[in-house]
Amino acid sequence: MPTILGQNQYGKAENRVVKITRHGDTHHIKDLNVSVALSGDLDDVHYNGSNANCLPTDTTKNTCFAFAKEYGIESAEQYGIHLARHFVDSRPSIHRARIRIEEYAWERIAGSDGNSRFIGADEVKHSFVRKGQETRLAQITYDGEKFEVLSGLKDLTVMNSTNSEFWGYIKDKYTTLREDYDRILATSLSTWWRHNWTCDEQRMPQWEKSYEQAKKHILHAFVETYSLSLQQTLYQMGSRVINNRSEIDEIRFSAPNKHHFRLDLSAFGLENEAKDGAVYYAADRPYGLIEATILRDGCEPHIPVDMTNL
Amino acid sequence: MPTILGQNQYGKAENRVVKITRHGDTHHIKDLNVSVALSGDLDDVHYNGSNANCLPTDTTKNTCFAFAKEYGIESAEQYGIHLARHFVDSRPSIHRARIRIEEYAWERIAGSDGNSRFIGADEVKHSFVRKGQETRLAQITYDGEKFEVLSGLKDLTVMNSTNSEFWGYIKDKYTTLREDYDRILATSLSTWWRHNWTCDEQRMPQWEKSYEQAKKHILHAFVETYSLSLQQTLYQMGSRVINNRSEIDEIRFSAPNKHHFRLDLSAFGLENEAKDGAVYYAADRPYGLIEATILRDGCEPHIPVDMTNL
Amino acid sequence: MPTILGQNQYGKAENRVVKITRHGDTHHIKDLNVSVALSGDLDDVHYNGSNANCLPTDTTKNTCFAFAKEYGIESAEQYGIHLARHFVDSRPSIHRARIRIEEYAWERIAGSDGNSRFIGADEVKHSFVRKGQETRLAQITYDGEKFEVLSGLKDLTVMNSTNSEFWGYIKDKYTTLREDYDRILATSLSTWWRHNWTCDEQRMPQWEKSYEQAKKHILHAFVETYSLSLQQTLYQMGSRVINNRSEIDEIRFSAPNKHHFRLDLSAFGLENEAKDGAVYYAADRPYGLIEATILRDGCEPHIPVDMTNL
Amino acid sequence: MPTILGQNQYGKAENRVVKITRHGDTHHIKDLNVSVALSGDLDDVHYNGSNANCLPTDTTKNTCFAFAKEYGIESAEQYGIHLARHFVDSRPSIHRARIRIEEYAWERIAGSDGNSRFIGADEVKHSFVRKGQETRLAQITYDGEKFEVLSGLKDLTVMNSTNSEFWGYIKDKYTTLREDYDRILATSLSTWWRHNWTCDEQRMPQWEKSYEQAKKHILHAFVETYSLSLQQTLYQMGSRVINNRSEIDEIRFSAPNKHHFRLDLSAFGLENEAKDGAVYYAADRPYGLIEATILRDGCEPHIPVDMTNL
Repeated sequence: MPTILGQNQYGKAENRVVKITRHGDTHHIKDLNVSVALSGDLDDVHYNGSNANCLPTDTTKNTCFAFAKEYGIESAEQYGIHLARHFVDSRPSIHRARIRIEEYAWERIAGSDGNSRFIGADEVKHSFVRKGQETRLAQITYDGEKFEVLSGLKDLTVMNSTNSEFWGYIKDKYTTLREDYDRILATSLSTWWRHNWTCDEQRMPQWEKSYEQAKKHILHAFVETYSLSLQQTLYQMGSRVINNRSEIDEIRFSAPNKHHFRLDLSAFGLENEAKDGAVYYAADRPYGLIEATILRDGCEPHIPVDMTNL
Repeated sequence: MPTILGQNQYGKAENRVVKITRHGDTHHIKDLNVSVALSGDLDDVHYNGSNANCLPTDTTKNTCFAFAKEYGIESAEQYGIHLARHFVDSRPSIHRARIRIEEYAWERIAGSDGNSRFIGADEVKHSFVRKGQETRLAQITYDGEKFEVLSGLKDLTVMNSTNSEFWGYIKDKYTTLREDYDRILATSLSTWWRHNWTCDEQRMPQWEKSYEQAKKHILHAFVETYSLSLQQTLYQMGSRVINNRSEIDEIRFSAPNKHHFRLDLSAFGLENEAKDGAVYYAADRPYGLIEATILRDGCEPHIPVDMTNL
Repeated sequence: MPTILGQNQYGKAENRVVKITRHGDTHHIKDLNVSVALSGDLDDVHYNGSNANCLPTDTTKNTCFAFAKEYGIESAEQYGIHLARHFVDSRPSIHRARIRIEEYAWERIAGSDGNSRFIGADEVKHSFVRKGQETRLAQITYDGEKFEVLSGLKDLTVMNSTNSEFWGYIKDKYTTLREDYDRILATSLSTWWRHNWTCDEQRMPQWEKSYEQAKKHILHAFVETYSLSLQQTLYQMGSRVINNRSEIDEIRFSAPNKHHFRLDLSAFGLENEAKDGAVYYAADRPYGLIEATILRDGCEPHIPVDMTNL
Repeated sequence: MPTILGQNQYGKAENRVVKITRHGDTHHIKDLNVSVALSGDLDDVHYNGSNANCLPTDTTKNTCFAFAKEYGIESAEQYGIHLARHFVDSRPSIHRARIRIEEYAWERIAGSDGNSRFIGADEVKHSFVRKGQETRLAQITYDGEKFEVLSGLKDLTVMNSTNSEFWGYIKDKYTTLREDYDRILATSLSTWWRHNWTCDEQRMPQWEKSYEQAKKHILHAFVETYSLSLQQTLYQMGSRVINNRSEIDEIRFSAPNKHHFRLDLSAFGLENEAKDGAVYYAADRPYGLIEATILRDGCEPHIPVDMTNL
């Protein structure tokens, strides 16, 4: 046979699992989009269509919903660990499971006024508005021996309206860009980070708290970095996460430079200087795209380059 | 000539205008997507390509950016009023201008911890994260005599995880739905409301405050309505806005019923009752789509049915 | 009660109905996205949540699928007429039904070579590739007495790489655009046209042929018009449809001017003239947006301005 | 320093380059979306914001447009080879360039009738309609010594309305799926394949012909495979490409199983058997997702797993 099968995986993608938990009258939401990918003894499925070793994708879907009820969803990571362990440990033909999860945040509807019967978010027990900011990400991989847990986020759009410069770069035949000493720096962050937890013998991170802290350090580094390049800002973000969170060894960013071009309005008799508060044109395409991995010294990179490179 | 020209309009759509205002070190953002549509003596452009009466769409674009600098952007509505008035009053061949605006909200990046040099959002003077919740809408139309100002929002996704029922409906040959006495009610609201301000002789509404209040009343009505149908909830939302905001005479909603189906997990030996906290499947398509106009008694409807019916 | 209910409608949107018809071994596909909107005696649903007059949206969904089996789908228009008539004539509380349909075209997979067992598209009896060009549209409205049938299309992207000019326009303070005597004209057409068939007493149009012919005339007018403005091209398209298709009285276009900017490459020592074959930058936003209705002389316009104004 | 920089790259993404070539009155279009990613001696940019080794993304954009004029665009692959070679060979600090390209196909507007002045597509010299089917892909990587050229496509949606079965799979506690002996098989293909050309000493493939042939073999394998699993169909597609195209050593597929569920209409007194031509519900999410690499025996895999795993 002149052709052979290489890496392959399959499963049900984008299962939209919503779990409500009721503590008395107070409700909580977990709103996930769960994708399963299984690998193993699956040559026959490909070579001749024999499904004897194939757990149907429909079954992987059912399992996602059943586990949400049976075990609850403490965190996306914990739920994914349950699922990955189940698929590999219960089926001899499945050697590796990867659970990839998007999580959408909701917040309680708050507020009050004279006409309203309620006071604040605390009293709003079952009414929510989708937060709509970043999408939280998790990926849990299990091969029967070790876990790999990545967490991350996408579509977190941030802007510094000053404290960003860009100059001193290479000039060649095709360079027309002018140096800028006061520009807007805006990006929509996609990032994955890798936890060093790999098995039950280690103490498991507190996934919810770890996420909150990693996100906070990313945002604070963005605020506090006087930026000479988006690359510098990314490095500061990643470095700060790793220096402050001992459970994280590696982080990778993919960050489009969302250009805000300051317009030349002199033809209309108008100055438009950054220092005075300027008008900008927010461009769609093309955009700079900056990608980088930051590692704890001595650690090996595991996050695929193409994972954030969409 | 057996064919004639009917309603027509033209202009530059989706101008992404970002204005930064600096008060000392503290910056403010207005982030708009501005679309211009002009009508008037434009028969010749259509019949024979003569552009003598045509203000190019490129010029309408330049005007959007120049006006943002020249007059600032106090609110989307105020900025749109400036633009609409300019196009009609300055060009005899333009009889009507419609400015449609999307606005994206940003919030200051907040937070603190021991490693961070800043304390709270107040001190973060030029660093922002896109809020990401609803998109605010405004539409200003001017015909040389009167203005019509619509405000609105889209993509505000809300959920009540209980206090929603659906029963007592028509049953016919094609009915299979079971009645439900404890269901999730979730929707992604699109809504436009119409202000009764039409000319400079009237006191102009405070556009920013009016928007905040209208949104608040919509959310509070959603929280406080024990719902027997999504239609009932929409009516309560609209009624409450009109009863509380004298500057608004009409409001129209388009609300997809974002179905969350409670799964039957009995095949897996699991109960999944709403009262215990259930697992739901969040469906994409199809969805119920509920649309309704609510009016102040005695007022005429002006918001087009098809405006919210996308 | 100081607020009253205005226009309202409801139904299940985006039912993805696929019907396969088998003629011996040869299969045919109809691939539709069907949205139902019903109006009638529905005040109580809004005022107090009584659903006694409400046919659930779930039932309207079931009806869409059942009718596809029971009556087949000869054309989107004919299928929509069946549905609309059913909802109004079978339910006293429903006074008006609007069926809106998107249709996706498929074509047979064709081709052959020495290694392949088949010769051409004729022999490929049940294998299809989605055509992927325009989405066909239909909207059928019925009020118990008369039908209104609109047909249309969206996302038909066309380009003339020459035979387009733009000059002789108004110049004002904000004008910077240079006149162009050889530019690219490209647009992504959205259009609806209205048939003058309204009831069973009239001879019903051949919907499939009518669509093909209308689309053909639009494309041919695009090819054959030496354009001095996109407005002129739209008028030629619409005029030609109405002059050639007696079953159509009105047509409305919404056409973004998809700008292709010829770049100034002189800084790099390169000429970039249209006559020599130029390089263009295809811009996303902003874009000109041109909208117009063309009518058979003596006919009233019925297609809403906001229907194509997305 | 406890953190270090790992893999990083940067460049301008999504440059929309359109090149018109004129042969007399007959025009040809190349319509590309070009993304540049450069790597090299860029530590300083990250560590301290020094841009001395940084060729600005704006310059990479200019280069894309200038090269389209200077060298033309014979094929996406050939154009990408020019660009990649330029960035690495002309800049000592750039060690690796990756050019990723999407290509959109256009076809001439064809047709004729009595009212029209033209006969067929041959005579339509500068009028085009966007084909709208698959998006063609190319990725060219160059490290100063060797090239790697991947070609591919995405969003090619195909359907077999019969000749697909699925049975004989694992049944566990969570299995509810019923076996099916006559189902629809539909997918939207994403695929990348790798050419074994790596340097100028080898004969370069004819990129345009190679693409056409690879696509044709994929489609023909889809038509001719009686499928017992989507995995089997993918393997047949890949195997056929490699067996017929000696310039290709590896191919990877990502194929969502676009479920078409045959509905049970028995509650409405309707049979809905596949053999009679059935009605199906085309589902959006969740979907099966099948991914696999097929290799020429003896070759190493190079296409990243995550490249097609979006």
